[in-house]
Amino acid sequence: MKPPPRLGPDATIGILGGGQLGRMLALAAAKLGLKCHIMSPDPASPAFDVVHRTTVADYTDTEALDRFANDVDVVTYEFENIPAETAVFLSARKAVLPNPEVLAITQDRLSEKDFITGLGIGVAPYANVETRADLRGAIEKIGRPSVIKTRRFGYDGKGQMMLRGDAPLSDADLNLIWEDLGGQPCVLEGFVTFRCEMSVVAARNAAGQIECFDVTENEHQNHILKVSRVPARISPEAHAEAIEIARKIADAFHYVGVFAVELFLVEDGGRERVLVNEIAPRVHNSGHWTQDGATVSQFEQHIRAIAGWPLGKPLRHGPTEMINLLGSEVEDYARYLAEPGASVHLYGKGAVREGRKMGHVNRVLPQKS
Amino acid sequence: MKPPPRLGPDATIGILGGGQLGRMLALAAAKLGLKCHIMSPDPASPAFDVVHRTTVADYTDTEALDRFANDVDVVTYEFENIPAETAVFLSARKAVLPNPEVLAITQDRLSEKDFITGLGIGVAPYANVETRADLRGAIEKIGRPSVIKTRRFGYDGKGQMMLRGDAPLSDADLNLIWEDLGGQPCVLEGFVTFRCEMSVVAARNAAGQIECFDVTENEHQNHILKVSRVPARISPEAHAEAIEIARKIADAFHYVGVFAVELFLVEDGGRERVLVNEIAPRVHNSGHWTQDGATVSQFEQHIRAIAGWPLGKPLRHGPTEMINLLGSEVEDYARYLAEPGASVHLYGKGAVREGRKMGHVNRVLPQKS
Repeated sequence: MKPPPRLGPDATIGILGGGQLGRMLALAAAKLGLKCHIMSPDPASPAFDVVHRTTVADYTDTEALDRFANDVDVVTYEFENIPAETAVFLSARKAVLPNPEVLAITQDRLSEKDFITGLGIGVAPYANVETRADLRGAIEKIGRPSVIKTRRFGYDGKGQMMLRGDAPLSDADLNLIWEDLGGQPCVLEGFVTFRCEMSVVAARNAAGQIECFDVTENEHQNHILKVSRVPARISPEAHAEAIEIARKIADAFHYVGVFAVELFLVEDGGRERVLVNEIAPRVHNSGHWTQDGATVSQFEQHIRAIAGWPLGKPLRHGPTEMINLLGSEVEDYARYLAEPGASVHLYGKGAVREGRKMGHVNRVLPQKS
Repeated sequence: MKPPPRLGPDATIGILGGGQLGRMLALAAAKLGLKCHIMSPDPASPAFDVVHRTTVADYTDTEALDRFANDVDVVTYEFENIPAETAVFLSARKAVLPNPEVLAITQDRLSEKDFITGLGIGVAPYANVETRADLRGAIEKIGRPSVIKTRRFGYDGKGQMMLRGDAPLSDADLNLIWEDLGGQPCVLEGFVTFRCEMSVVAARNAAGQIECFDVTENEHQNHILKVSRVPARISPEAHAEAIEIARKIADAFHYVGVFAVELFLVEDGGRERVLVNEIAPRVHNSGHWTQDGATVSQFEQHIRAIAGWPLGKPLRHGPTEMINLLGSEVEDYARYLAEPGASVHLYGKGAVREGRKMGHVNRVLPQKS
């Protein structure tokens, strides 16, 4: 594995993935004078529009990966579902940041939860469902309501199912659940009744500097993030606990780059507790507000971290709200353009599909005096 | 001439010029989901790094211009010295904004000054020096100290000369001056003793909406902008007068896009007066602070205007300072990266040359309470 580099201002960053996150990473790199090369199997990748060097190839195409690695000074990614072999192949050639070990752990919900609990951080009760045979025992242990999730490749509510009710489940019922999730290893999680969903977006560089953005309160619709708000309406204690969790995770991973920890604020015997839902080893939708609401954005922090540059100390301009434009909601862009203080970000995606993330709006609200 | 379009979010903007201004325009367009195609004769143009479509060709290459025009939905430019024929050639194919008439007037210092004074706006005393034969009469009229400037293609102090002293000038002296400036039409301007140099960056769209950024105070070193500060330390009356001047010019030009008016604040018989130095029909270095100090940047305003979209209502985050990184000063970037509230912009220019604009830093200063 290559050590993290310290890039000069003429360096080129390789980004795996050509969606809106890759696009916004490339824009942040450009602000800092750095070049980007985007690799994605999709020739219509929105990120291609903002860089001069692109590779259209499958992530398992070793010839393309080799050329890509030769053209760049460091490799990063916009999504955590990069095949493990791709990360390993590339990391023999150039530094891959965050490192492939982080990917391996966070790609598997079970190893992720084991890792988090190993740090003494709370998560919802969970049980491994390695095979169909484990299902009944897991349900007995965790109870219902609970959520069964595939261990790999789930996002935005895909690859998961709620288990409700308390009528006994027949073998046929269990078979149905198992088949519905594709007959693959799963994890069963106790359903958590939370006071709010929140996240911490944090950055760490190889020198060990850690900078966390303020805790963000998140509101989902159909498992897709709809609105983020800062400051989160939580107690100073819960805020401090959330930040402490992010710092612990950053250090334990020797993390280089930006990540998000999705959290639940729960009440446990009259006491507030912060539980980790999951870790996203990348820039995160709930950090988009930082583009307009803070003096340095999550995208720039990620680029600084993987470039081996000092991280920014994020100062917040004021209370900020981020609204995702999903599907045809993007057609409202002109209304938001005319709203004072609103900042519109569109991703240049051609096709509007229901629920597709087409853009977002950041509202920096006037400060109360 | 094509009418100003109203672009859809999948449109492509053509930009003539591949320097840092074209680069930052393209980045602002990308934020709004728009694609850009950059045309520049220089294969090492920094703006090429942030767009997928580029044309390397001379601005007089009509075949290349034709292909370029066919690929884009609207044409704009990052510098005012586009050959007039280029603008005319393109405007027969696609809307060119700001329109070629604006270019024609502002490319010639004399017609620019005539235009401004025609609006009842003050400028320093000036005289036309069409030929060598006009020189003595002009100096007699305007006096010394005064500045002689070529009517065309001057920038950052190039193509100008101070005339000082009061010893009579011989014909040989006048010949020398004339030859030094390349024996081309000039304008002689009375030297103005100003209290401060300032500018207004303003945007206007085809619907007639005008939005001005706060007046900016500018500090030059060797004729190159070094520092801009907002708010400018001027009276509310001078501020209002400066804004009024920008609005008048915007309307008189039926301007579409962003421009800057460079101004002098002078004392005239105990009274403050605002004089126009020159107009830059494009985004301007003294508006770079808007990237971090306001809720919408000058680059985004320009893109909105030429796209036929509503302009943003710029709100300022706080007192802001912009510092240009000239030549080897760019090597200080790491120091600025570590400074809380400072935002570093590097242009991705390879070669460091003395006085070359390599980047800038915006400092959003904490507000006094």
